Amino acid sequence: MNPILKSSLLIYFIGACDASGTDIALDAKATLLHRIDSLNLLIYTCLLTLTVLTIWVFKHRRVSWLHETGLAVIYGLIVGAIIRYGGSTNEVTYIDAHPAPDTKYNLSVPPDIVRFHFPDKIQISSGEAPIPNKTYAYSFRGEIVKVEQNEIDLKATFDPEIFFNIILPPIIFHAGYCLKRKYFFRNLGAILTFAMVGTALSALVIGALMYGCVQLMPASLASSFTFLDTLYFGALISPTDPLTVLAIFSQLKVDVNLYAMIFGESVLNDAVALVLSGAIQNYEKRYSSDGGFEITGFLGAIGDFIGIFSLSLLVGALMGCFTALMTKFTHVRDWPLLESALFVLMSYAAFLIAEVCELTGVVAVLFCGICQAHYTYNNLSADSRNRTKQLFELLNFLAENFIFTYIGVSMFTFPKHHFDPWFIIAGFLTSTLGRAVNIYPLSFLLNLGRKPPIPMNFQHMLFFSGLRGAMSFALAIRNTVSEARQAMLTTTSMIVIATVVLQGGAATHALAYLRIPTGEGQNDENEALPYRDVRSETPRGSTDGGSEKARLARLWGALDSRLLKPLLTHARPPLTETLPGFMRPVARLLTTTRQYTQSDNSLRRTDSDSDLCIDEPQPVPTSIDPQLSYNIRNGYGNV
Amino acid sequence: MNPILKSSLLIYFIGACDASGTDIALDAKATLLHRIDSLNLLIYTCLLTLTVLTIWVFKHRRVSWLHETGLAVIYGLIVGAIIRYGGSTNEVTYIDAHPAPDTKYNLSVPPDIVRFHFPDKIQISSGEAPIPNKTYAYSFRGEIVKVEQNEIDLKATFDPEIFFNIILPPIIFHAGYCLKRKYFFRNLGAILTFAMVGTALSALVIGALMYGCVQLMPASLASSFTFLDTLYFGALISPTDPLTVLAIFSQLKVDVNLYAMIFGESVLNDAVALVLSGAIQNYEKRYSSDGGFEITGFLGAIGDFIGIFSLSLLVGALMGCFTALMTKFTHVRDWPLLESALFVLMSYAAFLIAEVCELTGVVAVLFCGICQAHYTYNNLSADSRNRTKQLFELLNFLAENFIFTYIGVSMFTFPKHHFDPWFIIAGFLTSTLGRAVNIYPLSFLLNLGRKPPIPMNFQHMLFFSGLRGAMSFALAIRNTVSEARQAMLTTTSMIVIATVVLQGGAATHALAYLRIPTGEGQNDENEALPYRDVRSETPRGSTDGGSEKARLARLWGALDSRLLKPLLTHARPPLTETLPGFMRPVARLLTTTRQYTQSDNSLRRTDSDSDLCIDEPQPVPTSIDPQLSYNIRNGYGNV
Repeated sequence: MNPILKSSLLIYFIGACDASGTDIALDAKATLLHRIDSLNLLIYTCLLTLTVLTIWVFKHRRVSWLHETGLAVIYGLIVGAIIRYGGSTNEVTYIDAHPAPDTKYNLSVPPDIVRFHFPDKIQISSGEAPIPNKTYAYSFRGEIVKVEQNEIDLKATFDPEIFFNIILPPIIFHAGYCLKRKYFFRNLGAILTFAMVGTALSALVIGALMYGCVQLMPASLASSFTFLDTLYFGALISPTDPLTVLAIFSQLKVDVNLYAMIFGESVLNDAVALVLSGAIQNYEKRYSSDGGFEITGFLGAIGDFIGIFSLSLLVGALMGCFTALMTKFTHVRDWPLLESALFVLMSYAAFLIAEVCELTGVVAVLFCGICQAHYTYNNLSADSRNRTKQLFELLNFLAENFIFTYIGVSMFTFPKHHFDPWFIIAGFLTSTLGRAVNIYPLSFLLNLGRKPPIPMNFQHMLFFSGLRGAMSFALAIRNTVSEARQAMLTTTSMIVIATVVLQGGAATHALAYLRIPTGEGQNDENEALPYRDVRSETPRGSTDGGSEKARLARLWGALDSRLLKPLLTHARPPLTETLPGFMRPVARLLTTTRQYTQSDNSLRRTDSDSDLCIDEPQPVPTSIDPQLSYNIRNGYGNV
Repeated sequence: MNPILKSSLLIYFIGACDASGTDIALDAKATLLHRIDSLNLLIYTCLLTLTVLTIWVFKHRRVSWLHETGLAVIYGLIVGAIIRYGGSTNEVTYIDAHPAPDTKYNLSVPPDIVRFHFPDKIQISSGEAPIPNKTYAYSFRGEIVKVEQNEIDLKATFDPEIFFNIILPPIIFHAGYCLKRKYFFRNLGAILTFAMVGTALSALVIGALMYGCVQLMPASLASSFTFLDTLYFGALISPTDPLTVLAIFSQLKVDVNLYAMIFGESVLNDAVALVLSGAIQNYEKRYSSDGGFEITGFLGAIGDFIGIFSLSLLVGALMGCFTALMTKFTHVRDWPLLESALFVLMSYAAFLIAEVCELTGVVAVLFCGICQAHYTYNNLSADSRNRTKQLFELLNFLAENFIFTYIGVSMFTFPKHHFDPWFIIAGFLTSTLGRAVNIYPLSFLLNLGRKPPIPMNFQHMLFFSGLRGAMSFALAIRNTVSEARQAMLTTTSMIVIATVVLQGGAATHALAYLRIPTGEGQNDENEALPYRDVRSETPRGSTDGGSEKARLARLWGALDSRLLKPLLTHARPPLTETLPGFMRPVARLLTTTRQYTQSDNSLRRTDSDSDLCIDEPQPVPTSIDPQLSYNIRNGYGNV
């Protein structure tokens, strides 16, 4: 897929008046390229259609050993193999060029555009001579590292940046928007520990072990990996993507706290891994000249990590709160189309603002999603709630299946794979070990302070849920300039495929083997707790007893329910009741009539936690109404 | 906006291990380009947000003299001016290149990739020398026509092809999906005449008049326009986009037949103009070497037009019917998310298949939308109906406002504008004349055979509704290689802006001046006719008497209700009743249990014509519930 050639050719050549032989040939070529592009997209559209239809058959027949993502990967692999071994090659033509005589150029970087004067004195082996004296523009693509190995044949492949700019944002936003915040906050300590400390630890362990393994390999390979390379591999292979496992959890009604821990961790560790890998790359570029280790550079990288993560978080959260304010204080909710458009535009703006500020857009979009669900959702009209939920559900579904299809297809068609059996075996072993190091020691430490400790079989299930997915693949395919990076891409692809298909398929058996009770949690759930506001905080806290909230979380809860919720939404009690006396005038200004007049009852009904959490498996038994239960399923469950 | 440079730079350079001076500089450049891209997108996101908020204020204050598209254009113009006169320039660097010595190259087209060896012997004016002996890849962009005039400064601009591949398809699909088919088919004769014959006539008249005008202009300009150029201008300026007028119609409850004629014509003439302009370009390239007129070429172009139009129509209609069959005979409706995904994927596939076959994807998508609404919609689950309707409504809203914002911004920032006052004046005059030639003579001819003739004030209103919009602009900006094309782009942009803002704003006054009755049609509407199937066909036809159906339309109606509807949907009567006796076994196979069992009543309730036509203004009085009425408004009405 090469949109570059296509579009520019079309711009310049359609309707050119002097229809010479060259122009007609160029035009035919442009048309051909456009057709190839469309064909590539069509292949993926058909693959997704096929996946949708097969999922339907599976759901209809109640097959649960293969999730839609596993299916997408398998179809992708099959079609990739067909394209690779059945398709014809589209040759790319080259010419070597030197600067024209008497050229002056005073920059240290290569120019953006090369004006290539097509020569009339060139040696032609066929009879057809090019029209002489024409000048063509060529735009910069990148450095050619090995001149003999640059056969660029991009069949059914896309620019890797589209994953970060187009495919991942809706997936991540949807995860944030659907996060079951009640259980998320209840298990916040464990989730943060696994996602922040665990991911960093896992990256470090995998990086160190891989470096050791690489040193034992044949010298040719060993020399191409630096410690930073293997550390980067550790960072990219650490985030988990347990879609398949969660789908089965949802279906079998597994303990909601376990569900929250696995889902919450996987949402956050994507963000952590993305920023972590960025910090490693920055370290590589800024602080190190030989790929070795320097203490100032290391501290700089840690600073990068913390700074970028928290600033991105801030941008996302602020945009979410800003949307909440706009929907609270205007009556835009009277026009749901405008309201939905505003919601989508503001969420996308969070991504763009972070990117403009050289932060991480994906992280901003995650926290924007969480804030949109927590605050803005409460202000939206019923129509907009429904519309935004369904829109992002659909986008998420398509994006997710596209990326898994692409993982399958690219295994065969992406030209920059490098199969190295030793590296692949080492990758599998160390990524398993890295997951173990993430879960078991940290669970032990957490259990020291946790009232209901994480039982051993939950720990095993957490370990087992370490499937790798979209984020690992997107990070691996982003940069394939060196042989080391190409080996990483191949290994990552294979780990993703193996874990999604095999581990995902075995999840039901794992649950049974680990004797994790299923079909439970309904009693606990039927309480249908709304967000615990100040009035219900104290009694809940004591009767609940299920999980000890950390002090910080409690502080946050108080701030949220006394200040943020009343400020940003129509929730009760209004600010006039929660703020101290001297703030009364300001509080009155920031409270809407609706907030004064509505009853506590309607608040509970409209509070986001009771109706947004579409991954909540309880309200409707999944076996009764397939239509409703699929809504609940929502990509993280499986009927 | 230059995604080409950005993405490729990122791929090749992020994390390159040999962090030399050049690499760091390149990396900084890549980051800068990515930031500029994000900033451009952010500008448009903010503009759209601003438009949404202002529309809300307008709706709230009941301002109706400015439609959201007019607003988007005006905001675009303001921001475009700020960027143009306030922003800094990002210089593009050039170098001239010649082929390396001893290069062999045996093709008649320029190569795809130039491998540019960065020289170490180059004359450097500053002290910093580039790293020698590096080779960079440069990809083909196009021919440089005037070497001295190629300052490419693309601030806040996009590749024009995105309009045809990303922005227009959802707009056109939505138009087809929302077409009020009952009134569309009732006025089919007039709509087809205006859209097919009228657009061709208008293109021809405008083309001829413009050619005459151009000949009277200064010689420098006259020589740069061929007759084909002006004919192309005629084709691109002929399609109408009366969004603003229709919004006011919807608000004031103007006669539904007039509404159907204007909306139906504008939907179809976009498709006609697109294929027509394509045929003119093909003529230019294939049959003519001097831009003159040749009879074989002319016939060839007519053949192209008819062939491409009907084949594209066929592709779209077949994909629509195929989706209908899939949703009828599978139970995918039990899982609305899968069903919606299937619907979206199949509709997109129609676009891609047409593009792969070198047909017109936009035309295919239009007829796919019509078929999806006419057949598939009846099979969908309630959730999917809602979801697809809302999804495309939102996409349409965003795409439409984006394109109008872009028209405004590009007026200042697009570098290839050519202001020629004579051409602009001539453009305004001839495009008005072209609209008149489209409406008045054809109305006269139609009235000869029409039972209730089109009254004179309706004709004036049809003439007045000749606003130009998205399609004209997209066609004009597609190709700006010559000065003639640049003058066309400028003129088209100005005509679009003027008609949308001024004519759109004056629509209410025009209605009053022409004494077109408003607030009417409710009695007629309250019958709430479902699609007229075989049972109600004859009595309706006689009592209705409002508009005489053409024989062809009646034939189509019979085929549709006896064969297609029972085959493709769950509509009654089933095929077993409508097909002749010997076809009974086949008919039984193609009839679902639901079709046998459901009552006529439920059919009426679920038939698409009674609940899809969200532009139908009657069921809910617009003044009562703003939320509901906005749904009805749906971008073509205005509350």
